[in-house]
Amino acid sequence: MDDFIFGTLATDARRLTYEHALRAGVTHRSARHPRDPLPEDPVQIELTVGPEHFCDRAWIYLSTDGLDPVGDHGAAIHGQAIPMEQVDVIWDNLEWGYRRRFRAMIPEQPEGTVVRYYVTACDTSGNEVQSDGGAYYAYFVANDPTPDWTYDAIVYQIFVDRFYPGDAQDWKNPDTPSGFYGGTLRGIHEKLDDIIELGVNTLWLSPIFPSPSHHGYDATDYFDIEPRLGSKEDLKDLIDTAHARGLRILLDFVPNHWSFLHPNFQSAIKDKNSEQVSWYNFQSWPGQYESFFSVKSLPKINLRNSEAREHILEAVKYWLDFGVDGFRLDYAVGPTRDFWADFRKITREAKPDCWTFGEVVEPPDSQLSFQGLIDGCLDFILLEALRLTFAFRRWDASQFTSFLDRHEAYFPPDFSRPSFLDNHDMNRFLWVARGDKRLLKLAALCQFTLAGAPVIYYGTEVGLSQLRDTRQDGKGILEESRLPMLWGDDQDGELLEYYKKLIKLRQQERGLRYGARQTVNIHKDILAYERRYDDRSLLILMNLTEGETIIDLDGSWNQMLIATQPCSLEYRSGRCHISL
Amino acid sequence: MDDFIFGTLATDARRLTYEHALRAGVTHRSARHPRDPLPEDPVQIELTVGPEHFCDRAWIYLSTDGLDPVGDHGAAIHGQAIPMEQVDVIWDNLEWGYRRRFRAMIPEQPEGTVVRYYVTACDTSGNEVQSDGGAYYAYFVANDPTPDWTYDAIVYQIFVDRFYPGDAQDWKNPDTPSGFYGGTLRGIHEKLDDIIELGVNTLWLSPIFPSPSHHGYDATDYFDIEPRLGSKEDLKDLIDTAHARGLRILLDFVPNHWSFLHPNFQSAIKDKNSEQVSWYNFQSWPGQYESFFSVKSLPKINLRNSEAREHILEAVKYWLDFGVDGFRLDYAVGPTRDFWADFRKITREAKPDCWTFGEVVEPPDSQLSFQGLIDGCLDFILLEALRLTFAFRRWDASQFTSFLDRHEAYFPPDFSRPSFLDNHDMNRFLWVARGDKRLLKLAALCQFTLAGAPVIYYGTEVGLSQLRDTRQDGKGILEESRLPMLWGDDQDGELLEYYKKLIKLRQQERGLRYGARQTVNIHKDILAYERRYDDRSLLILMNLTEGETIIDLDGSWNQMLIATQPCSLEYRSGRCHISL
Repeated sequence: MDDFIFGTLATDARRLTYEHALRAGVTHRSARHPRDPLPEDPVQIELTVGPEHFCDRAWIYLSTDGLDPVGDHGAAIHGQAIPMEQVDVIWDNLEWGYRRRFRAMIPEQPEGTVVRYYVTACDTSGNEVQSDGGAYYAYFVANDPTPDWTYDAIVYQIFVDRFYPGDAQDWKNPDTPSGFYGGTLRGIHEKLDDIIELGVNTLWLSPIFPSPSHHGYDATDYFDIEPRLGSKEDLKDLIDTAHARGLRILLDFVPNHWSFLHPNFQSAIKDKNSEQVSWYNFQSWPGQYESFFSVKSLPKINLRNSEAREHILEAVKYWLDFGVDGFRLDYAVGPTRDFWADFRKITREAKPDCWTFGEVVEPPDSQLSFQGLIDGCLDFILLEALRLTFAFRRWDASQFTSFLDRHEAYFPPDFSRPSFLDNHDMNRFLWVARGDKRLLKLAALCQFTLAGAPVIYYGTEVGLSQLRDTRQDGKGILEESRLPMLWGDDQDGELLEYYKKLIKLRQQERGLRYGARQTVNIHKDILAYERRYDDRSLLILMNLTEGETIIDLDGSWNQMLIATQPCSLEYRSGRCHISL
Repeated sequence: MDDFIFGTLATDARRLTYEHALRAGVTHRSARHPRDPLPEDPVQIELTVGPEHFCDRAWIYLSTDGLDPVGDHGAAIHGQAIPMEQVDVIWDNLEWGYRRRFRAMIPEQPEGTVVRYYVTACDTSGNEVQSDGGAYYAYFVANDPTPDWTYDAIVYQIFVDRFYPGDAQDWKNPDTPSGFYGGTLRGIHEKLDDIIELGVNTLWLSPIFPSPSHHGYDATDYFDIEPRLGSKEDLKDLIDTAHARGLRILLDFVPNHWSFLHPNFQSAIKDKNSEQVSWYNFQSWPGQYESFFSVKSLPKINLRNSEAREHILEAVKYWLDFGVDGFRLDYAVGPTRDFWADFRKITREAKPDCWTFGEVVEPPDSQLSFQGLIDGCLDFILLEALRLTFAFRRWDASQFTSFLDRHEAYFPPDFSRPSFLDNHDMNRFLWVARGDKRLLKLAALCQFTLAGAPVIYYGTEVGLSQLRDTRQDGKGILEESRLPMLWGDDQDGELLEYYKKLIKLRQQERGLRYGARQTVNIHKDILAYERRYDDRSLLILMNLTEGETIIDLDGSWNQMLIATQPCSLEYRSGRCHISL
């Protein structure tokens, strides 16, 4: 059993292929400093040119009026052209050749500006090559930091069809795991007491737009609600009640693609002359078009088309105006980067304290390139590390600690990194931990004592697991990790209490959300770190082995959280010589 | 047929292994800025720590009194300790993990100081790891630029046993190519007229110290001359006459290893308690010891031992005092880096205008790390590119041009990069060009119109080739490229005249040695660049195809060198629309 979190980068060979592509090409990849510019900031743009491209000149073409920049060989046709300077040459052992590096500055821009740009390099024969296979970029100039409340968020991820039917309905018990189980918005509404008792303060709902599937990641309308799940009134009621009770609501939104059944796509493939054709990237109309991971039923939306982009942005604004508090953004690497600056502008203008974070299943540098466009990214790298350490037991505590120290140093503190142990696209944690609840509890303790806003995937807190591996027979059976929520006596009450304790602890101890984290000791078996905030300090200690261990620590803390064997949480105070 | 210039880095797989090792480890690798500090320069030292090392602290230990620095966990025992600061964390896709980067400054030092140092990183458990597997570094603080005359050097590489017997002797005609052919120092002396008529101004002699082999790269005494080759008097005569006729003499010197027959090594393996034992790195005395590429007959000298180091440095000084003008340094990556700072000091003090360059068959970053320790490195990267382009025809003119632009931008102008088409360790150029003299002439034209001091391997200028591939049957038969020099009617007179023309051209046109090089056009078939110096400009044009080509160039030049088909050199003046 194994994880394949980073699908296209899951093996050494794939990583090498990925690196080769980056190094060989004419590559910008959002290499921009600062990434999230303020009005007084000029912005430095970098470009590298691989050994096989004979370019000795490069330009940035940019515009600030909302229209695309257009340029040709250093002359602006629309907007402005800025010549780039070759700053140095780098030797690359893997490519066995030199890469050139170019740099230029874009001058400071007024608050609220969306700067659109693309970068080209040109060889002496005059061939001008647009970076990254023709990519367009943009950034939004504003002093609009990540909203304060997000640092306190504890998120509960609800897969709507699988949470609770409500209205005194039973689960529908479909023939296949991909059938409809009957969860609804009203069902969620009915369970708000449980949710609030659990202690979370933010709900992330799986897609609720009209869609032919149980998961909803293939919408047919971004301005309505799937009738199976409820109505706009139901959502309004849910939002109002949630807000009144201190809960915020995030929607799951998919700007990259929608269902081939979407009327817009149907128009596009029925009439070659229809306006809708340009909403997609047809290689050969009507049968060949770009789609999500080449799945034909999920046509990719051409967000370079301004009507398509406006349509998506209107939907975003519509739901913020409707009352939702933000979005989890599905497959955020899909949409062209210049879309995200428009997205940033519209979200911040419609609701300045909305929270937006992406699903970016890519390396940290790729995640960080979204800084300033969305508030952050789901922390898939931490997820992998948590599962390697606590579920698969392939990393010992020292490996995890060393990773964690660097991971936290890598990302700026205002970049949201919601943490999670599992989600709807992978085996549940309890499954990969072979049902060992102690491992889940240790992992959750770790999750809840780190800075990133914790996300609980519905059911994980009450022992919901699965029957088969999601990767059985080489095929993905993701529905295995989306079984219906357990209620009543089916819940593991002891685990639930543990989760409630963790949540309460995080709510009470400001240091767990805001405090500086410091490794106290690197030890093979014991995870030991502290969180400090103002004058208060907490020591977190976890024994990752089965046996008893003695550890000497030099220091004193106001409070100690100690996970002993079998996993239960103890609190102690003062200095320590501890046996775990 | 193929080249394997960069043996340990000749394939993608080997490059990947090499990169993995660099990225995973605690690595300094001479990451030092500036590399060649002046007395007023503080020096920045960098260290990176790979994902598998849990280090969160790092120190530099340094000394300036000639003795080794010694330190422990940040405390100096001898010399000084400087704590390093973590500056950032880098994500590494290949390692799929984070590397930490540390940095610190060594304060400025007075002229003439050798700063010896090593770098360590330490994890929270207190394990202190010395960088690069225990490497020691040093640099020499001085304002001692590369000597002026080296920019004008045209070098002739003589393999002494294979050049000319002299004294009316014939070649010895040994049974095997590794036998003795009978070349001598007096033989070279007798041929000075030919050498001077050729036009070169610098001789590089293969090793002339006592040695059991025909090549001499396994000396048994660094203070004497191999009797087969001559005597100290013969060398003195040769040097004096050469100097009187405007020729400089470079010796080939091997600080890394010597013959197992060297009396010192024989003492070491005969008596475990002898002082000589510490001149080597015995893993298990007497049978297991470090040696050059694991060849047991070539024990590696432990230059960390101060007596061994002094012995080698004395030899270096001895021959400079004797009258030689510098050294070609065999396998310069072998000796510990701190040796090279002592080497620099002693060479510059003994003979301020001596020229030293290394054989560093490694990537450019590794070559450049020798800056400030020796004057430069034989340009193996250019060699590979010249052979790929002109001999193997695997690169077209645009690939070569693009490479060249970057290669020249990568290296600082005061870093010597002697250029060459072949040497004694690989197939001769004419052999890999399948005897096509036109290709050799084109390659030589290119070589002689670039900035690096050209080196001619004896015989290449008169059509000397070989009978078999040096890599036949999977074994290296390097002697194939060391056949005896051709004399008299055996020489290709037409080729020799061509070479003389090239050399004269380079001597006459200061721009070919000092001028800025600029690519004029990137073209698949035509190599086109110019050299400009003061008000004078030269255009160099080479047709790399068999057929006639028309090329339009925008510019005007004082002089044009045009290589047409079949390869002959034309001179023209003025503006041009050229058919080649």
